[in-house]
Amino acid sequence: MRIAELSQQSGVPVPTIKYYLREGLLPPGEFTSPNQARYGEPHVRRLRLVRALVDVGKVPIAAIRELLTYLDQPEPDLHKAIGSALEPGLQRERIATADLDQACADLDELIARRDWRVNAGSPPYQQIAEVMATMRQLGTGDLLARIDEYADAADRIAEIDLALVQRRGELHQGQGEEVVYGAVIGTIIGDALLQGLRRLAQENASARSFGIQSDCDPPQDESQEKAPSS
Amino acid sequence: MRIAELSQQSGVPVPTIKYYLREGLLPPGEFTSPNQARYGEPHVRRLRLVRALVDVGKVPIAAIRELLTYLDQPEPDLHKAIGSALEPGLQRERIATADLDQACADLDELIARRDWRVNAGSPPYQQIAEVMATMRQLGTGDLLARIDEYADAADRIAEIDLALVQRRGELHQGQGEEVVYGAVIGTIIGDALLQGLRRLAQENASARSFGIQSDCDPPQDESQEKAPSS
Repeated sequence: MRIAELSQQSGVPVPTIKYYLREGLLPPGEFTSPNQARYGEPHVRRLRLVRALVDVGKVPIAAIRELLTYLDQPEPDLHKAIGSALEPGLQRERIATADLDQACADLDELIARRDWRVNAGSPPYQQIAEVMATMRQLGTGDLLARIDEYADAADRIAEIDLALVQRRGELHQGQGEEVVYGAVIGTIIGDALLQGLRRLAQENASARSFGIQSDCDPPQDESQEKAPSS
Repeated sequence: MRIAELSQQSGVPVPTIKYYLREGLLPPGEFTSPNQARYGEPHVRRLRLVRALVDVGKVPIAAIRELLTYLDQPEPDLHKAIGSALEPGLQRERIATADLDQACADLDELIARRDWRVNAGSPPYQQIAEVMATMRQLGTGDLLARIDEYADAADRIAEIDLALVQRRGELHQGQGEEVVYGAVIGTIIGDALLQGLRRLAQENASARSFGIQSDCDPPQDESQEKAPSS
């Protein structure tokens, strides 16, 4: 197909497609003349992935380029691909070294308590340490009091993640790239899913705790609260 | 303090502070002459919050402005403040209406199954529906097979969130704004914490499941795998 049809099928405007081609987020099409190229189904699929990472995953272009580099290797490195979508370090210059050192020491203790087999210094490790230091700097260090319980929930989520990826491996026997593709989408786009679910669960928890009425409450709730009048 | 000292104390460069002042993210200082203003501790605190939301929370400037508007009201609306940091809808034009309708129907069923008291159509509701439709569009609808278990984990996280915010209310008796401030930071900056914990927990789960060696593994692991040679 030509670029106009690629645009139609993917819902991505032609100038944006050209930008992605220049930035190396989309492999070039097959040239049929010096000014015209033909694109295929893999281009549609790649464009959808890039748009989902940009729009839903809020991943910056440079990080997507890095992620795709890992994804396109014959034996993709899953942790590196997923890790490349995290961008810790932006906050670093504004955090006092002592605060960051303290956060790393606390995080090392958490990892030891849980007997987690993980790499200290990886992007998620850095991100957690920066969040911990930032929360203390904002005067909200008390919000870290139950980090072990958050880690319990993270363990549970990771178990589900792993089971879904293993199931995907059974569905797509011998297609290792489908497993990696699923793990990347499940993790990065899945972060937006979990973020949304957490907000809904918070809304529900506070509605139940404080008795706040939701606009969605069925009308019978109201009638139950009223004393019978006749 | 003058703007130069404000910059030093907050770690935010002077041009960036001026930009925040123009954008209304930082209230103006007290003018001591037409070209000079004096700033106080609340400005340092506000700047730290804005930087944490930008750097750690990856919240866009326009969303922060909206969030601060809610936060600065005498009786802040917590759900609106937290919800304003979500930006669903960017992806919408690229999702077929039928796919989005299906996702909303599935989400409504999930909410009914869990008896969640929440508003349909709120920003997190929209975000979840968009993620569900996007995952299907990417050919990874199988990753939604265990969404109820993700929702269980979200319920658990929300319980911890609520307990931490209630504890904060006890620590800061009569200071309602501290509770809202804590809830906003706990949720938005907390998303980055949970995202990081999920990645570490994934790394641990796959290391244990597939026996992948972490760089951190103690050397005795290796000797255990080898048969004794003498």
